[in-house]
Amino acid sequence: MNDELEGHQVNTTTFRGLVPPVITPLTTDRQVDTASLERLVDRLITAGVDGLFALGSSGETVLLPDAARDLVLEVVIKTADGRVPVIAGAIEPATARVFERARQAERLGAHAIVTTAPFYVLVGPHEIERHFRTVAEAVELPLLAYDIPVCVRQKLSNELLLRLARDGVIAGVKDSSGDDVAFRQLLVDLRDAGVDDFAAFTGHEVMVDAMLLAGAAGSVPGLANVDPEGFVRLHRAVVSGDIAGARAEQERLTRLFKIVDAADPATAAGMTRGAGAFKTALQVLGVISTNAISLPLRPLDAAETARIHAILDSVGLI
Amino acid sequence: MNDELEGHQVNTTTFRGLVPPVITPLTTDRQVDTASLERLVDRLITAGVDGLFALGSSGETVLLPDAARDLVLEVVIKTADGRVPVIAGAIEPATARVFERARQAERLGAHAIVTTAPFYVLVGPHEIERHFRTVAEAVELPLLAYDIPVCVRQKLSNELLLRLARDGVIAGVKDSSGDDVAFRQLLVDLRDAGVDDFAAFTGHEVMVDAMLLAGAAGSVPGLANVDPEGFVRLHRAVVSGDIAGARAEQERLTRLFKIVDAADPATAAGMTRGAGAFKTALQVLGVISTNAISLPLRPLDAAETARIHAILDSVGLI
Amino acid sequence: MNDELEGHQVNTTTFRGLVPPVITPLTTDRQVDTASLERLVDRLITAGVDGLFALGSSGETVLLPDAARDLVLEVVIKTADGRVPVIAGAIEPATARVFERARQAERLGAHAIVTTAPFYVLVGPHEIERHFRTVAEAVELPLLAYDIPVCVRQKLSNELLLRLARDGVIAGVKDSSGDDVAFRQLLVDLRDAGVDDFAAFTGHEVMVDAMLLAGAAGSVPGLANVDPEGFVRLHRAVVSGDIAGARAEQERLTRLFKIVDAADPATAAGMTRGAGAFKTALQVLGVISTNAISLPLRPLDAAETARIHAILDSVGLI
Amino acid sequence: MNDELEGHQVNTTTFRGLVPPVITPLTTDRQVDTASLERLVDRLITAGVDGLFALGSSGETVLLPDAARDLVLEVVIKTADGRVPVIAGAIEPATARVFERARQAERLGAHAIVTTAPFYVLVGPHEIERHFRTVAEAVELPLLAYDIPVCVRQKLSNELLLRLARDGVIAGVKDSSGDDVAFRQLLVDLRDAGVDDFAAFTGHEVMVDAMLLAGAAGSVPGLANVDPEGFVRLHRAVVSGDIAGARAEQERLTRLFKIVDAADPATAAGMTRGAGAFKTALQVLGVISTNAISLPLRPLDAAETARIHAILDSVGLI
Repeated sequence: MNDELEGHQVNTTTFRGLVPPVITPLTTDRQVDTASLERLVDRLITAGVDGLFALGSSGETVLLPDAARDLVLEVVIKTADGRVPVIAGAIEPATARVFERARQAERLGAHAIVTTAPFYVLVGPHEIERHFRTVAEAVELPLLAYDIPVCVRQKLSNELLLRLARDGVIAGVKDSSGDDVAFRQLLVDLRDAGVDDFAAFTGHEVMVDAMLLAGAAGSVPGLANVDPEGFVRLHRAVVSGDIAGARAEQERLTRLFKIVDAADPATAAGMTRGAGAFKTALQVLGVISTNAISLPLRPLDAAETARIHAILDSVGLI
Repeated sequence: MNDELEGHQVNTTTFRGLVPPVITPLTTDRQVDTASLERLVDRLITAGVDGLFALGSSGETVLLPDAARDLVLEVVIKTADGRVPVIAGAIEPATARVFERARQAERLGAHAIVTTAPFYVLVGPHEIERHFRTVAEAVELPLLAYDIPVCVRQKLSNELLLRLARDGVIAGVKDSSGDDVAFRQLLVDLRDAGVDDFAAFTGHEVMVDAMLLAGAAGSVPGLANVDPEGFVRLHRAVVSGDIAGARAEQERLTRLFKIVDAADPATAAGMTRGAGAFKTALQVLGVISTNAISLPLRPLDAAETARIHAILDSVGLI
Repeated sequence: MNDELEGHQVNTTTFRGLVPPVITPLTTDRQVDTASLERLVDRLITAGVDGLFALGSSGETVLLPDAARDLVLEVVIKTADGRVPVIAGAIEPATARVFERARQAERLGAHAIVTTAPFYVLVGPHEIERHFRTVAEAVELPLLAYDIPVCVRQKLSNELLLRLARDGVIAGVKDSSGDDVAFRQLLVDLRDAGVDDFAAFTGHEVMVDAMLLAGAAGSVPGLANVDPEGFVRLHRAVVSGDIAGARAEQERLTRLFKIVDAADPATAAGMTRGAGAFKTALQVLGVISTNAISLPLRPLDAAETARIHAILDSVGLI
Repeated sequence: MNDELEGHQVNTTTFRGLVPPVITPLTTDRQVDTASLERLVDRLITAGVDGLFALGSSGETVLLPDAARDLVLEVVIKTADGRVPVIAGAIEPATARVFERARQAERLGAHAIVTTAPFYVLVGPHEIERHFRTVAEAVELPLLAYDIPVCVRQKLSNELLLRLARDGVIAGVKDSSGDDVAFRQLLVDLRDAGVDDFAAFTGHEVMVDAMLLAGAAGSVPGLANVDPEGFVRLHRAVVSGDIAGARAEQERLTRLFKIVDAADPATAAGMTRGAGAFKTALQVLGVISTNAISLPLRPLDAAETARIHAILDSVGLI
């Protein structure tokens, strides 16, 4: 346990609500920009988020050397200062490497660990299940599964998620699978199985209202880096039963999400367009100092930034 | 440059012939089994291979912690002792992490570096090209591209490979794409472009004769761990124009390759079946001490081992 | 126009609400079972559906010879008898063949045509757009696009759908893409573009409440063949603002949807499990006479039928 | 049996050698251009091909109405006049529709039938096997399997092909799978299983020499429409053991194959680029009258035609 957290009360056994995956600000020479990261984290917590997910996909975790990852986690935990729990990604191709990152996250004071199915290495359902079970045994913190087939090539089946949930192997899932049908079925299956305190989070920015209404524990939207207050309003509208208000806010955020189309598709793809847009928006908003991003991605240019500026303007953020 | 290599003559600018991707023997507690690795490397060189590819996919590179990777590379380079060049995999999701592994391989005395397109992180053609160009600038050793879409999700286009080859960014390619049509076209394109010394290697065990006849520089077959002498005979038959002999040897090796079907598909998939079978065969042959394999893979069991034993027997290896 | 429809008032320009894709009952020798089809259609209309989609994927349209398709459409239109509009699938690999089926549907008295992107033939975005535009020019009835990448390999992009909607080429879309994120974005895009009367239907049984709340025009759930009254209740709950009631009904239907898992995965896949389960449930419920299905699919067996019986029982349908 | 064929001797039980998939010439209003088709067929037979495959993928079979398909088959069979066997595609999404096309091909005098796995309809291995077995029972002519996963989404496994071959269900396979590794393994498996007269054809234009050397029965290259004499020379070189000559001819044909890159990728994809290029080359060579192609494909334009002209020139065809 990190010394800074002593005396603070963080509920480390349940995770609910709005938990943004924190992007990793960089300096122009692609080192971690700790001052910007502190500002970003403070802004998120001030806006009212319920937790932070550090070192996730949008946090460029697989692009960062270990030393940079350690620094990111230290800064996020220190800045959060126990106000909200910090969930740390331990995202590596296979089990032994995940052990290393998970234990380091434990040492640095994280409150939970998130890991994906193995990637690069070709595996099937038995290997995936062995992976999660072995990692859970090796770490003391709660373990959440990260379902992101677009990155790891395989979807975690509901059958597997349900079995791991019932056996207490995983405390939750972040669903970035793109398969809302399966997620909806999972929510019903969990209820029918009597698994009550499972943290089923949607990672889909434009489906937060629907999934909260359907019983999701919370959301992990990358876009909340840019507009945390909007997502806080959305969560509160759903909780208070203001369906029309939730839908209106959700639609506003759906329009904001078009910043991920700002980069020129002729020269930018994938994460350049996604995390690259979030960073550029945060730079435009004055939260972080540069929109630098890890190689081989490139920062958005002036024309692309102008498009993002216009969208921020249109949804009332500027 | 590693001290052990001083005084030895290794041609580090061209790579040709049979270059097996060396598997990584483990002890039963999943530590690098250096004694077995030394035996394996010695056996390969004695059989007549032209080079060694350490820390490739079959070498479990993405499953190993950095300390284990360093140890593997040290043992392979020390055991090779300059008799053949050692190509080292620097296989990480993105650029900065590849830098770290590539520089470490340089320090340890490797003769060339192999890297893939980025993985996990979503990228497009521009990001992939920037990745290879940036890595090539950062390392002094020759760089080879590893085309393995089944692991990284994207095929390297012939257009990109040709451009990188012409610009001197890459010195060769290991083709594990499964797309022999594209590889064949690449060989013609390279010739037409006047790129003469490009190391175009096929990674497909059962197509070595065809691809050597078509003009490939060599092969990188995982199965050569098990039967290096067979692959040496195959290469020599093609070079000497003994087409019928080459085909007969190729077909024998194609039958041997059925060891990758030995593991029970109901409980084993992907690399458990592939590298797991190579390791089990090498254990049966007495080359390595155990068929232990990194988590979350599992070693083949007794029934599966018996199937492999029978195949080894049928092709005359026992 | 079919004589039987004269004197009936069917609004053929807007399509909203619950429009089940009607399955095609067969006799044991795999001929269209017209008596069962009449019973099925009558039951759907009596339950309160707003329209019928004949000759869709669940209707086995691509498995039926043309004569059988004509018979199905005739029976559905005659039985509907103008009480609800009938939308007819014209689903063929490419344009000229779609013309033939669309014109036949016009002759037989359908109120709208549904077609997919081309399939089998390899095409890109330009060919897909030309396909929809040419078909729309060739038919007088409203044209709906059917977005079903799992069958045709390509998703219809929101950019294309929006352009076709604005240009009046298509009057709606049935979304069976599995990509609810894109569908949600489309709903917002349509509104922002001022396209008001576009029939955006979700085809996902377990997301009907969420998508109606998000502004979808209606749903086309295959499962409504089995429990039309449940889906009618669901639609009405959403329209009346009874969110809790809608969610409860949606979850009941999500449990019912588990009938598609009843067939043994060791010997049945894909449509055998889907349409095969719908047919078996309808046979158990006494609506159709057999659960026969077109070759190469197989009807569910006694053990599989027992599982479906138990599920029907558990949700109160028996 | 077609009357025209009486008195001619065609061996209908074995199929070997060069069997081009005949493209379907169209008039500018997209009707079958029978005069051009007769010239094309005559040119192929005069060049020395061993058989003809009518109504395959490059023949636009899934894009043509049934009446056009019948006309194509009649013209091909009548023009071949028993000089070489004619294999007819019966390519439809599912079994009953394949029956219809296969029986019509029998009536029109074809010598064998080719069919694919089901498409559009979702199926698994059991449904695919039932499809081939049921079709084979329903037709008297030899049945060949067409393995083309890029169009039907699933590869025919070697296990399935071998079982169907051993049971006499299929007389051969046209491999357009892109998976030459699997095809090579199949050739070895067939030999080991003692299946001697199986017609294993490669459909890959640039791998014909390699696959003939590996024991393939023949090739079905679309490009042979354009340069039948080149492919005849290639086949003869392999048969006569002139490996260097075969490779030189193969490389010339690989260069010619670049005509499929002539169409502008910004406005043309898939079959527009493939069959569209073959047709344009044949028009340039004066064999067919127009390069018209079925909707939604488009004919290549003047600039694209000029690129094809230059390639034809560079390989000595003009």
